[in-house]
Amino acid sequence: MKQKRFFLSEDQIPEKWYNIAADMPNKPAPMLNPKTKEPVTEDELSEIFCRECSRQELNVTDRWIDIPGEVREKYCYYRSTPLVRAYGLEEALGTPAHIYFKNESVSPVGSHKLNSALAQAWYCKQEGVRNVTTETGAGQWGTALSYAARIFGMEAAVYQVKISYEQKPYRRSIMQVFGAQVTPSPSMSTRAGKDILTVNPNHQGSLGTAISEAVELARMTPDCKYTLGSTMSHVSLHQTVIGLEAEKQMEMAGEYPDEVIACFGGGSNFSGIAFPFMRHNISGKTHTRFIAAEPASCPKLTRGVLAYDYGDEAGYTPLIPMYTLGHEFMPANIHAGGLRYHGAGAIVTQLLKDGLMEGMDINQIEAFEAGVLFAKAEGIIPAPESSHAIAATVRRALECKETGESKVLLFNLTGHGLMDMSSYDQYLRGNLINYSLTDEEIRKSVKNVVGI
Amino acid sequence: MKQKRFFLSEDQIPEKWYNIAADMPNKPAPMLNPKTKEPVTEDELSEIFCRECSRQELNVTDRWIDIPGEVREKYCYYRSTPLVRAYGLEEALGTPAHIYFKNESVSPVGSHKLNSALAQAWYCKQEGVRNVTTETGAGQWGTALSYAARIFGMEAAVYQVKISYEQKPYRRSIMQVFGAQVTPSPSMSTRAGKDILTVNPNHQGSLGTAISEAVELARMTPDCKYTLGSTMSHVSLHQTVIGLEAEKQMEMAGEYPDEVIACFGGGSNFSGIAFPFMRHNISGKTHTRFIAAEPASCPKLTRGVLAYDYGDEAGYTPLIPMYTLGHEFMPANIHAGGLRYHGAGAIVTQLLKDGLMEGMDINQIEAFEAGVLFAKAEGIIPAPESSHAIAATVRRALECKETGESKVLLFNLTGHGLMDMSSYDQYLRGNLINYSLTDEEIRKSVKNVVGI
Repeated sequence: MKQKRFFLSEDQIPEKWYNIAADMPNKPAPMLNPKTKEPVTEDELSEIFCRECSRQELNVTDRWIDIPGEVREKYCYYRSTPLVRAYGLEEALGTPAHIYFKNESVSPVGSHKLNSALAQAWYCKQEGVRNVTTETGAGQWGTALSYAARIFGMEAAVYQVKISYEQKPYRRSIMQVFGAQVTPSPSMSTRAGKDILTVNPNHQGSLGTAISEAVELARMTPDCKYTLGSTMSHVSLHQTVIGLEAEKQMEMAGEYPDEVIACFGGGSNFSGIAFPFMRHNISGKTHTRFIAAEPASCPKLTRGVLAYDYGDEAGYTPLIPMYTLGHEFMPANIHAGGLRYHGAGAIVTQLLKDGLMEGMDINQIEAFEAGVLFAKAEGIIPAPESSHAIAATVRRALECKETGESKVLLFNLTGHGLMDMSSYDQYLRGNLINYSLTDEEIRKSVKNVVGI
Repeated sequence: MKQKRFFLSEDQIPEKWYNIAADMPNKPAPMLNPKTKEPVTEDELSEIFCRECSRQELNVTDRWIDIPGEVREKYCYYRSTPLVRAYGLEEALGTPAHIYFKNESVSPVGSHKLNSALAQAWYCKQEGVRNVTTETGAGQWGTALSYAARIFGMEAAVYQVKISYEQKPYRRSIMQVFGAQVTPSPSMSTRAGKDILTVNPNHQGSLGTAISEAVELARMTPDCKYTLGSTMSHVSLHQTVIGLEAEKQMEMAGEYPDEVIACFGGGSNFSGIAFPFMRHNISGKTHTRFIAAEPASCPKLTRGVLAYDYGDEAGYTPLIPMYTLGHEFMPANIHAGGLRYHGAGAIVTQLLKDGLMEGMDINQIEAFEAGVLFAKAEGIIPAPESSHAIAATVRRALECKETGESKVLLFNLTGHGLMDMSSYDQYLRGNLINYSLTDEEIRKSVKNVVGI
């Protein structure tokens, strides 16, 4: 019988995260304090993030960072996640490629987001924080943080992008089951939210706006820290547990990936699965291809500009070196809410600039086609975000079919799509459309960014 | 570090199912042909079920039944499911009991139902069947059959209880993603459905009605067989893979259950986890307690009568020896749709009569309280059906707290509740009520059953 799933034993679960910044040929450009234009300091970051995450954010020297024992213990409650050989998908495509996926959808909250939520919540707890706050778009990060806060005995306040709050009421319910306080954003509870609603009372919300609200709450509330689900370097760091496991599991399968593929919003799941493999490219041992699959309607990697830009709409964050569409970019309302973010994190930005990875843009109908194909072949209904990675993998697998190459493709299945069935409904009824941006729209959208 | 999850390697996955009928001190009473009142034959059953399932249904002599290689291969795509030590729940309850659960929610379709769907679909396929049909209440069985039919290349037609079709549109979407044809029941597509709608155009549907429609479709369509998700002995047989795995996994954990607990609709998940352990009670080696947790609003085990009754509303099925509330019983619209069935299967009926197991009735608010407690403690949102087992486990664990006993409790987590968030919403808003039946209501409801 062909082995389909590969697991690690508990003693094989990584004890350290991998910090790629230590190995990068060119370090990421520093984040800047927008007032002074000087590199931000740990103290400045600590005003909103917890101390340890601020420290990790600026660490470009230590290659390995210890996973705290209690975090690793919680990891072991759902990790290793399985590495799966997608025989069903291969057969459906008739491709000679060997397709593997890392199935992060089996985490208790249904996505990879828990890997960083547990770490961030634990550090907050250690530092005496009693309240954590964050934003959520599709709802996966908010769910993960709500649960992580609960198991470490803290309160969580989540700003959920309003359109997602309304279109996905059951995501809200899940966060509430875990005990979180969930507010649709923009809200009247913050200055940032009020300002936006004053100009546009029907504002549907965006990740950038929700970040502004959560950051403001953290700044204004003693005993409260902000947490972020992607983009930042420390979030990517925590997600490397995915790739470190996958590396061992691919070895169990007797293969090594020729291509590693992940969907791309802010960059954390991509970083998580890619960086541990990328270190062997950097050292010259391997020549793996790394593909970040982004929505064609939010194409920061393939069509954005390289610049200093804010991470949020109100401009509360430091200036981040980013491939960006501009922090006021309002993405089309596609059904992969987690990928509708205007900018890429500092590390992936540098890696893209240096040619160590590449972007690939995927239209939403192609993503849903790939998602349904995958569901029928493998039985798992993927999150629309993950379906972008599946679509990119399908493209590559079909190219292998053309050329007859048995390439080894590895993609990250970030989460399941069980909370996204209304989107599937829309797809099945033929109601989805593709969105693309004109060059003029992009030029307008990036007019406020700061040159690098 | 305390080990939380226990997995089996692929070579440890069972190669045979366990047929408890071979070991029962008193064999189950035979099903009867309603016209002749003679025991039904394999040929009669084969008019609606596939041949092999009909054979298994009547097999009371072979203790072990081979799992076909291809079915076992598909099992290995998601099995073993983890056995989990519920440290979080134990801590939340402050109980000295050791609580374990078998997590069937990790199957691709989110519940244990796939264990039998794969087997039934495969046998149908082997016998040249091209269409399978069934009913579904909460949607878990319909989802499992839709997926199983897909991977073996057959078409699936699912009759979904109308109220569930309307209240859980995303369950329908999942089945449609897998390519199934889903019809709300009662429908105008069958004689049984038409008759019911003629009397009551607003009939909300029931499992009994949907079974009638699917059975009729199977009878009227060449090349089409009916499949059932619970109640029948061959379904229970297929589910024993759960308990056989759990037995090995409990051994890995160094413990043996004092009590085995499962929710109860028709009996298949209960049978699946219980029977492999129960064989050691039958042989006198152990004295494990077996608890079937049923909804107080559908109390066939605790308040039903022992009688011959039909399995469906229209009376298309054989007469089954059952603890039953009457085949025309219309259960209250509780939020555990999978448990709203009027009768227990023939084997569990005999075991209950012989004192080898016991029923425990749980109100729906108690079930949701337990479900939310479990979600906060373990991170997994349980199906409302499973929450009945959790509630029974919580009761027993709190009794251990009273007495100071460190009993080992094992329950079956049949599925996740991610498609049931509207029910959780109702619970969180305080909108749920408990339903209970008066003795007079039960007397009326069982007036049509046939004495045993």
